[in-house]
Amino acid sequence: MRRVKREPIYLDYNATTPLLPEVLDAMLPLLRDGFGNPSSGHARGRTARAAVERARQQVAELVGRAADEIVFTGSGTEASNLALAGLARAHREKRRIVTTSIEHPATLEPCRRLAQDGYELVIVPVEPDGRVTTRAVLDALTPDTLCVSVMHANNETGALQPAAEIAALARAQGILVHVDAAQSAGKVPIGELDADLLTLAGHKLYAPKGVGALVVRRGTTLAPQLLGGGQERGLRPGTENVASIVGFGAACALAARELPARQARLRALASGLLWRLRAEIPGLVLNGPELERLPNTVNVSFPGLVGRELLDRSPELEASTGSACHSDSEHPSAVLAAMGVSRERALGGVRLSVGVLTTEEQIERAAACLVSAARSLRSG
Amino acid sequence: MRRVKREPIYLDYNATTPLLPEVLDAMLPLLRDGFGNPSSGHARGRTARAAVERARQQVAELVGRAADEIVFTGSGTEASNLALAGLARAHREKRRIVTTSIEHPATLEPCRRLAQDGYELVIVPVEPDGRVTTRAVLDALTPDTLCVSVMHANNETGALQPAAEIAALARAQGILVHVDAAQSAGKVPIGELDADLLTLAGHKLYAPKGVGALVVRRGTTLAPQLLGGGQERGLRPGTENVASIVGFGAACALAARELPARQARLRALASGLLWRLRAEIPGLVLNGPELERLPNTVNVSFPGLVGRELLDRSPELEASTGSACHSDSEHPSAVLAAMGVSRERALGGVRLSVGVLTTEEQIERAAACLVSAARSLRSG
Repeated sequence: MRRVKREPIYLDYNATTPLLPEVLDAMLPLLRDGFGNPSSGHARGRTARAAVERARQQVAELVGRAADEIVFTGSGTEASNLALAGLARAHREKRRIVTTSIEHPATLEPCRRLAQDGYELVIVPVEPDGRVTTRAVLDALTPDTLCVSVMHANNETGALQPAAEIAALARAQGILVHVDAAQSAGKVPIGELDADLLTLAGHKLYAPKGVGALVVRRGTTLAPQLLGGGQERGLRPGTENVASIVGFGAACALAARELPARQARLRALASGLLWRLRAEIPGLVLNGPELERLPNTVNVSFPGLVGRELLDRSPELEASTGSACHSDSEHPSAVLAAMGVSRERALGGVRLSVGVLTTEEQIERAAACLVSAARSLRSG
Repeated sequence: MRRVKREPIYLDYNATTPLLPEVLDAMLPLLRDGFGNPSSGHARGRTARAAVERARQQVAELVGRAADEIVFTGSGTEASNLALAGLARAHREKRRIVTTSIEHPATLEPCRRLAQDGYELVIVPVEPDGRVTTRAVLDALTPDTLCVSVMHANNETGALQPAAEIAALARAQGILVHVDAAQSAGKVPIGELDADLLTLAGHKLYAPKGVGALVVRRGTTLAPQLLGGGQERGLRPGTENVASIVGFGAACALAARELPARQARLRALASGLLWRLRAEIPGLVLNGPELERLPNTVNVSFPGLVGRELLDRSPELEASTGSACHSDSEHPSAVLAAMGVSRERALGGVRLSVGVLTTEEQIERAAACLVSAARSLRSG
């Protein structure tokens, strides 16, 4: 029997996204003739500078801020590190940091280092649906609190956090707020997030890897973490990654323009996938909230099965058992553990994340793959 | 009179370089279908992982090291920051840092921050030709010295430093050595630099901006500066910038293969430029050593003139008065000042740096431009 090799179905958009054609088209001139250093005074340098500033405006528009509040970084990870290390260095009088148990390692690990360095670190637990409550976060705040860092949407479950409410209420107490919007930007509106610091990652919204931004509210005192030339208003030295910054700007412009349609379409695709799986797999459990969730993310546990084995039996399907950063490990997801999910259920988890290039036909095939793999493992 | 607009002559390769066509060709597949996250377990992730590891091998070959000694970063600046902050955090018992007065801000500024944090910082002065002596550096070393950081070639004058000798002699005393090879890699051999830590920057050797590497000798204890996922053996978190890393690898492979021919050709072009200028401009001074210099760099002061004004009168020529990072400032170059160059001579300086795409015809035109601009400023 011959089998026709079919294109794999990519359902791992939360791990990384492809460049949209418009994004690559915007980048190519900068990868060819437009290679100038934006700090150079000659024409080629000035052209590169103008391209960076146009992109800065595009990013600012997606987040509803001013261009001078955007600091380009080399990644979302670097942006979150700058937020936390930069606040700590600039505000040495306050020694307490509040965060949640489901943050990305790019937030949790810098917080843990601050704890090693003498800070009091409070990690607020989440509810069984993967959401932290505003109440729990507010209860952890003290006058000595330097900042609260909360993600907008969890990368593994898609659970939307009450980040806007937390930001408003913490800021009213004079506490600085960092929000990691790496997973939510481009999927849901983020303009209402009135945070002091906001993390964005290019490669989660159809821009290249190797570029991110920290949105820094005007008037926020922040020390740089990396030191060198005076680029990015002294907050992030190093020759600007012009082509990737331009791609990031183009991706943000597309996201801003298409957001309502994109949200509706992603939700229809992801809901369709969940509905199909629920219909065929008795006992399937959704990890994360039913409603307050990113439109594109479905994290489900297959009862009695191991997510890794399911995916190994579905080579046509490119998805993951949790965050890409931890795909090597045999340990159950730390995020699911923080939600109180049992080890067995956590090991049965699969994260399916759809994107703008996902088709209805792919959703049908993906569901069929998973159902067939589950049945063969059961009978196996 | 109509003037034909001619292509500008780019003589600012020390600020940044264009991508070579082979480099962009290597990157494009990763910017299109090959967009996987190297940490993902599925086929698209594994393909991306393999591409990163192939590039790691190519970078390792250029520097004469093993692949597992290469840590990819977001820039040369980040690599130098990681070297200095990472050593300080990992070796808290030693509290003295030795560097030179002509280092790039990506070295000097992290050193100054360590001084703020209680380290004893010794900045060794250079000779009038812009070179530090091995003797002066060795005299600054004490048993309490954590590390010595010295650049291989200065970005403004091209002055080659005795970094290999310093590395060998400092290491023999048990002192860690960081060498910034951002400007020298791809222009002169760097395999003989037996440093513990070595900074590389992609965009200085025909690879894209936004990627660099820190070479970390096996067995060197280093703490990460950025924290997050476990990428790059825990030393540099964040999703790998796959396409740029692949471009960096391709550029290193080209540099390794073409180095002897490239060196000879760059030297012929730059020497030709210097010879022409000396023949036409009485009193022209070379800033930097006559011989121990990068083959591509000519930093000259025009007597009685201001470099900025000379370049403004030569719009056809894209060059700089010093490092790109400081092109805005009216202050004379800190590097020339550290060499003891007078303010007037320093303000008369122009840095001309040629590259692999420079032609003999461009050199002739560039010299003619500068000579004509100098004469018109003199008579004007």
